[in-house]
Amino acid sequence: MTLSRLGEFGIIERIKNVQINQSSDIHISIGDDAAVYKINSRKWSVITTDALVEGVHFDLSYTPVHSVGWKLMAINISDIAAMGGIPRNAVVSIALTKSWSAKKVDLLARGIADCCKQYSCDLIGGDTVSSVSNVFLSATVTGEVEPKCCIQRSGAKTGDLICVTGVLGRARAGLDILSSSQRKSRGEKAVNHFLYPKPRVREAQILAKEVGINAMIDISDGLASEIHHICSSSKKGCIIYGNKIPAAKELEILSYKEKKPLFFYAMKSGEEYELLFTISENNFEKLKKNKIFKNNLISVIGKISNKEDGMQLLDDDKKMSLPTSGWDHFKKNQ
Amino acid sequence: MTLSRLGEFGIIERIKNVQINQSSDIHISIGDDAAVYKINSRKWSVITTDALVEGVHFDLSYTPVHSVGWKLMAINISDIAAMGGIPRNAVVSIALTKSWSAKKVDLLARGIADCCKQYSCDLIGGDTVSSVSNVFLSATVTGEVEPKCCIQRSGAKTGDLICVTGVLGRARAGLDILSSSQRKSRGEKAVNHFLYPKPRVREAQILAKEVGINAMIDISDGLASEIHHICSSSKKGCIIYGNKIPAAKELEILSYKEKKPLFFYAMKSGEEYELLFTISENNFEKLKKNKIFKNNLISVIGKISNKEDGMQLLDDDKKMSLPTSGWDHFKKNQ
Repeated sequence: MTLSRLGEFGIIERIKNVQINQSSDIHISIGDDAAVYKINSRKWSVITTDALVEGVHFDLSYTPVHSVGWKLMAINISDIAAMGGIPRNAVVSIALTKSWSAKKVDLLARGIADCCKQYSCDLIGGDTVSSVSNVFLSATVTGEVEPKCCIQRSGAKTGDLICVTGVLGRARAGLDILSSSQRKSRGEKAVNHFLYPKPRVREAQILAKEVGINAMIDISDGLASEIHHICSSSKKGCIIYGNKIPAAKELEILSYKEKKPLFFYAMKSGEEYELLFTISENNFEKLKKNKIFKNNLISVIGKISNKEDGMQLLDDDKKMSLPTSGWDHFKKNQ
Repeated sequence: MTLSRLGEFGIIERIKNVQINQSSDIHISIGDDAAVYKINSRKWSVITTDALVEGVHFDLSYTPVHSVGWKLMAINISDIAAMGGIPRNAVVSIALTKSWSAKKVDLLARGIADCCKQYSCDLIGGDTVSSVSNVFLSATVTGEVEPKCCIQRSGAKTGDLICVTGVLGRARAGLDILSSSQRKSRGEKAVNHFLYPKPRVREAQILAKEVGINAMIDISDGLASEIHHICSSSKKGCIIYGNKIPAAKELEILSYKEKKPLFFYAMKSGEEYELLFTISENNFEKLKKNKIFKNNLISVIGKISNKEDGMQLLDDDKKMSLPTSGWDHFKKNQ
């Protein structure tokens, strides 16, 4: 079996199968946004790693090098946020081709540094190596989380409301505009969202610490895929209301052209780095009083049900199975 | 300027230039084997990242996939050891081409797991992505170090003895045998050393904790290069006795053929993962009583001098400048 059939999560399963961890300090291992290990009773450490490969995750013919550096850090910081953590330190592994200019290196470094600075994350080490053909970038970010704020994707409870932050689909729209020859000025907001994602560290802190939520994940592979992760880790089902998914206006033309509902694109758009979380009805009342709710940052898009009910999508009054597909770079058809 | 002129250390300098770290908890940042940040007064955290790129660091036509997985962890664990640390947790970033088989993934995973197990390091997370042409692997290992055991490369003092563990040049010999068509059974030890390097975690602990040393680095790019790192970070000079460098017997044929002294190869051989350290004469007396000295594991190869004296190599009675070249994948002539 080749990897195009096995897929990313199949590979992870195989790695999990051979690994035997020994320490009792590990709180969360492979299988969540980030791993967590205990330092003491008041402080736990969070660690995550995420990579970007040229030709797979980014295309330098239309992506500024500075934004690639920013994204490398942002995708990792977003994973720390999704655990209820605060980023602290980072190390990067950078494989560049020999033809890169020193100026390009500076732009990449500045993108990394700018994102680190924005999120008070210190870059404390790294490795630079050469690559034969494609650029490969990997970062590891460590952070801290208070034990009571550590939110897993497996904590969803029946009856929880399913919520997301922000608007979805903007990254997809941004990529479309950026990679097409007819770049229009009205898409600047979407392009910027795609090039410079802003991890929701502050909002995740409010949710985990002040409000109290049961499960959380960041939307890197697309909403549909992340809901599946939450439900399968929590051993739950769900119902998602299609018309409640906050879809980016920039997708309207595409939706009209392809005659598919707006939320279809919002649900499949990866690299959004918004938060998907589940919350009890009681705590939702608390959330409603919080500024992040008052600022229209939160949408309720569904409800957690029992596992037996399956994962359902409600489109107008039509019930259907929630699509599974998120973004898997190993698989061909998305 | 392209990277083939700038070189690895030039790139690191450029990254250092744009980065502004904010936390007072950072003890060692970019520029040593690993970074160190303070957790509390008794325990500090060490973190390092190192990458392996197909076609640059390994060639799957003669390198078993299992050994690549082992090496990925070993090179990182060796960096933790060189700081006087003990490895604890690891995360890996793996970019594989779609044509890889599931069996190959299993072998890679087993190599990673076997090395982790050997050094009591838990694999707690990772990212698997696809790559267009070459395989790219990066690991980050975190560890712990007691403040008094934290050894930097910048701590060498004038008068210190310069020592190495083990025998040098075996990795070079192993690679030569492995990549040549005429593989001979007598080279098995060297081949094994090249494929399965054994980081000196235990020995580094003895040196840092029981004996007391001033500076340490692991030999990844070659002895000559690492001595330069120690001297330039410590603002010192040195004299190295060529005939004291413990050279692998496997290099004898090469040395005879090319009419160059044996130590020449031992000095330039990368991927050795032995320890290079400097120690005061007083503490050397303590070391002499230790089992790692009694087991013939330590060689004194030179002495630290003042910066003004430069870095000298003594070959028989001939004094010359210590060669600078280590292994830099960006530069062409090694």
